[in-house]
Amino acid sequence: RVNGDRLWDSLMDMAKIGPGIAGGNNRQTLTDADGEGRHLFQKWCEEAGLTMGVDKMGTMFATRPGTDPDALPVYVGSHLDTQPTGGKYDGVLGVLAGLEVIRTMNDLGIKTRHPIVVTNWANEEGARFAPAMLASGVFAGVHSLDYAYGRKDPDGKTYGDELKRIGWLGEEEVGARKMHAYFEYHIEQGPILEAENKQIGVVTHCQGLWWLEFTLTGKEAHTGSTPMNLRVNAGLAFGRILEMVQEVAMSEQPGAVGGVGQVFFSPNSRNVLPGKVVFTVDIRTPSQEKLDRMRAKIEAEAMKICEPLGVGCTVEAVGHFDPVTFDPTLVERVRSAAEKLGYSHMDIISGAGHDACWAAKVAPSTMIFCPCVGGLSHNEAEEISKEWAAAGCDVLFHAVVETAEI
Amino acid sequence: RVNGDRLWDSLMDMAKIGPGIAGGNNRQTLTDADGEGRHLFQKWCEEAGLTMGVDKMGTMFATRPGTDPDALPVYVGSHLDTQPTGGKYDGVLGVLAGLEVIRTMNDLGIKTRHPIVVTNWANEEGARFAPAMLASGVFAGVHSLDYAYGRKDPDGKTYGDELKRIGWLGEEEVGARKMHAYFEYHIEQGPILEAENKQIGVVTHCQGLWWLEFTLTGKEAHTGSTPMNLRVNAGLAFGRILEMVQEVAMSEQPGAVGGVGQVFFSPNSRNVLPGKVVFTVDIRTPSQEKLDRMRAKIEAEAMKICEPLGVGCTVEAVGHFDPVTFDPTLVERVRSAAEKLGYSHMDIISGAGHDACWAAKVAPSTMIFCPCVGGLSHNEAEEISKEWAAAGCDVLFHAVVETAEI
Ligand SMILES: NC(=O)NCCC(=O)O
Ligand SMILES: NC(=O)NCCC(=O)O
Repeated sequence: RVNGDRLWDSLMDMAKIGPGIAGGNNRQTLTDADGEGRHLFQKWCEEAGLTMGVDKMGTMFATRPGTDPDALPVYVGSHLDTQPTGGKYDGVLGVLAGLEVIRTMNDLGIKTRHPIVVTNWANEEGARFAPAMLASGVFAGVHSLDYAYGRKDPDGKTYGDELKRIGWLGEEEVGARKMHAYFEYHIEQGPILEAENKQIGVVTHCQGLWWLEFTLTGKEAHTGSTPMNLRVNAGLAFGRILEMVQEVAMSEQPGAVGGVGQVFFSPNSRNVLPGKVVFTVDIRTPSQEKLDRMRAKIEAEAMKICEPLGVGCTVEAVGHFDPVTFDPTLVERVRSAAEKLGYSHMDIISGAGHDACWAAKVAPSTMIFCPCVGGLSHNEAEEISKEWAAAGCDVLFHAVVETAEI
Repeated sequence: RVNGDRLWDSLMDMAKIGPGIAGGNNRQTLTDADGEGRHLFQKWCEEAGLTMGVDKMGTMFATRPGTDPDALPVYVGSHLDTQPTGGKYDGVLGVLAGLEVIRTMNDLGIKTRHPIVVTNWANEEGARFAPAMLASGVFAGVHSLDYAYGRKDPDGKTYGDELKRIGWLGEEEVGARKMHAYFEYHIEQGPILEAENKQIGVVTHCQGLWWLEFTLTGKEAHTGSTPMNLRVNAGLAFGRILEMVQEVAMSEQPGAVGGVGQVFFSPNSRNVLPGKVVFTVDIRTPSQEKLDRMRAKIEAEAMKICEPLGVGCTVEAVGHFDPVTFDPTLVERVRSAAEKLGYSHMDIISGAGHDACWAAKVAPSTMIFCPCVGGLSHNEAEEISKEWAAAGCDVLFHAVVETAEI
């Protein structure tokens, strides 16, 4: 068994960096706080005898050597970046649990044939720079490095410039590493495990996603002196699209979600009808067929909403992954580790996207979930218990060590 | 007749300060650009022999003495502040036309019994600090000075602090001045005069307004892993309220408008359902009865929309004025000046709010409108012709001089 106290203490120490305003964290990608968090992780890795490599996307790889010089490493990781009002566990748990696996192996003097690499993927959240899982996406060959470097935050700063600015631009070619396997331990971020009273989620699939960024073009005009029939009201079109997205998601129940998290009205003044409204629709479902249908429906319906209002409508896909099926052998290894350790478990589909979804394109991959209180995540009030954290880490330890072969 | 070229040149010179990004202006209240615009206006006033007074709200009063020491001044003015993406004429025309009236009187050596005071009211737009017409509202006793000083911009900076910062905190008690009459010349900001092919709008009334600031409280949660039935989606409630406001306004046609210009999603991240949505509904109509009914309907319907979604809803009125009837004697003076000068004219109701609406509480007041292209305002593309500007200024000149008695 791993050292649950030590894991918890590390989680609490990391949470001191980039504190939020309500008990959580604001350690967004490539901010100063992200840089500070990386230094703390690096220090811990060095103390555990690991060798750090950093790639050109800023992803950190901390290696524990294996006994066989020809054996590919087993990777275990997640991300240290957070949402602007994020929790202390989303991503962080997976990175620090990877470190705890190493620390426990060191304590027990375990050697493995395959090296083990603890990974901190850069820009998983996609909150500052869309899309999410950007660095793992470049690693898996889904995005080019140039595309990634050019991604902009809402202030217009680019990923490439900000990576240099915080001093974490590495030298390794992105994706040059080959993986024997990839494991990611994460909080569920949904309500199922807690409701079903299970300690471990054996993640078999991840639902697919589209992020559709809409730009609606109306006509800036005075809210008071512009008669209703002369308005080209992009705000009204936005309201109707919000309702339509809800309806499309509801029509695909069960097993589909849709919503809008981000919107910018321009000029965003109380007495000006917005000339421009930019927002992102987030739709997800585990079914490829549904995913395609939802996207097509939403785009077509949005045009139907905008046309009679005279509002212009363009759509850009700023994030996408197809539904993922994780590696059956690794999934079974997680399941049997939970069984052997006596933890209650169930198979589960990931509602959120994870770096494991991209890793799955280039290596056998899987995930382990632990419950979170009320299914709450992307909220500073996100909470888990020390026991939950430790149980999943135990499962991770056994699955990783078994895969790396003693 | 006034000097239309000189008026136009002054308009173009003022437009160089706080340029926008598309040919208009961004000279928002109490910004550095506002300070600069004030200095230019002050310089022009001094060159015209006027004496400047500034009150504790930052409103500027430039006085041309009268011949009778006991006669109250005739005020003529508007505002030099703009929307973030505002036009070159909204407000500015009224202030600089006031100056052109003085310059023309100087040219002709006209003396009047009553002094004439050209006025630049502070914070008319309300874009940076709600409500609109803030300084004239304090002048008229509608708001307290403390209330005004405490108004905050979106960055949390207060009116009081910013007024000091730009160096335009004056010493005069606000509202201490008594007015013989108040005239305001403004662009229509609506499409009626142009459509009816009239040079002059004789403004008889101004419609009333409510700015209702809603705060919707949902539950921040992950857009991917939060099932539809567990969402407390403040964004969806906002969408439904947008549609409802539209419906309420349409149900009161003709002669009513309603819309939303400003919204803030929090945390405004693509993969987070908003925990908080703050936005302002702007409703207006010339009918007191309709105005009250629309407000009541919108508040009641918003509660009905939020309740089943579990979304909390509070409403604060951040701007309000009742419908205004302008002084019949002054209105008739404007009408007959237009008639005498041979300008086509029509009676009109102001769709926008103006400092004249508050001035009307403490003095006989009225307004003159000139057409604007396409009725467009609160848009950098706002446009008028030099001839339109001059025609209204001619009418202003005659009405003001007549009121001030040669
Ligand atoms: N796990 C997680 O929240 N990732 C961010 C990408 C997403 O929105 O799913
Ligand atoms: N004239 C004008 O646009 N004033 C700003 C206040 C309003 O929204 O009516």
